[in-house]
Amino acid sequence: MQRKHLGDMPCPIAQSLELVGEWWSILILRDAFRGLGKFDEFQRSLGVSPTILTRRLKSLVTHGILYKHAYSTRPLRFEYLLTERGEAFFPVMLTLLQWGNQSLAAGDVTVEPISRQHGMPVTPVLVDDSTHEALTHLNVAIAVGANAIHRQDPLQGTKNHYETHPNKESL
Amino acid sequence: MQRKHLGDMPCPIAQSLELVGEWWSILILRDAFRGLGKFDEFQRSLGVSPTILTRRLKSLVTHGILYKHAYSTRPLRFEYLLTERGEAFFPVMLTLLQWGNQSLAAGDVTVEPISRQHGMPVTPVLVDDSTHEALTHLNVAIAVGANAIHRQDPLQGTKNHYETHPNKESL
Repeated sequence: MQRKHLGDMPCPIAQSLELVGEWWSILILRDAFRGLGKFDEFQRSLGVSPTILTRRLKSLVTHGILYKHAYSTRPLRFEYLLTERGEAFFPVMLTLLQWGNQSLAAGDVTVEPISRQHGMPVTPVLVDDSTHEALTHLNVAIAVGANAIHRQDPLQGTKNHYETHPNKESL
Repeated sequence: MQRKHLGDMPCPIAQSLELVGEWWSILILRDAFRGLGKFDEFQRSLGVSPTILTRRLKSLVTHGILYKHAYSTRPLRFEYLLTERGEAFFPVMLTLLQWGNQSLAAGDVTVEPISRQHGMPVTPVLVDDSTHEALTHLNVAIAVGANAIHRQDPLQGTKNHYETHPNKESL
């Protein structure tokens, strides 16, 4: 494959992508959030080859996103559970789900986020924790922060978001 | 490659992954949100081969996530801009960024979401639009919704989240 090793890029988006590895890993995490944990359960849900599944599970464990838990000792049997870091991936999953659903007509939405308390659909919206303002591309920039001033440019290519963004003047 | 065509799975998470294609596409979108639009700009930022970049840009245009805009007619030159659907991907990008940053010490955070208005970092949190309650894996399930009752199981493998989730009783 010709791509660079994304983990070498200091941008945390690139690093996150490297951590979760590939599509299968995200679908494994989706199923882990649904309560699946056993090898056979993942395989049945995903229809993926045992080789690929083994590799992806191992990678998720190595990166501290899943951990192995022995649910039986005789015979020794493991299940894969979410670590704290794995659980923290939930917002990515929800926003991805919502983006997928936005392309569908209301009646075609078959998978949705549902409150565990009352069983009704919830509508995820991303807000700023302190101002509660909804965050969109119009009011938020993904930018090189103050901590980056004395570092190599983590986004590789432009020195500063504000120097190059065409919308700068209009915002 | 052995994987199934993810777009065949009715789950919108799987479909979203198919739409954005692969890692490069997400990094192209990251750069589009930073205001990059020209082929050369993407190439310089990502260090990706022209062949792969051409293929990924074409795929993003085909899927209605980017569109081509002629910024010069003599010579004819295009830039790639975000469509409405592309702009709607922003929350995925922000949650992915935040997940990456959570693994880093505070001083190591070099890329962060910043308010365009006042230039200060914002802290994205995912809440329910109506109750404003923060949404986590503890209070939200990704589940087969009411619309799915008469359909094929969109998550392929379990009929209903609540029948199989081990935390069901405790929530």
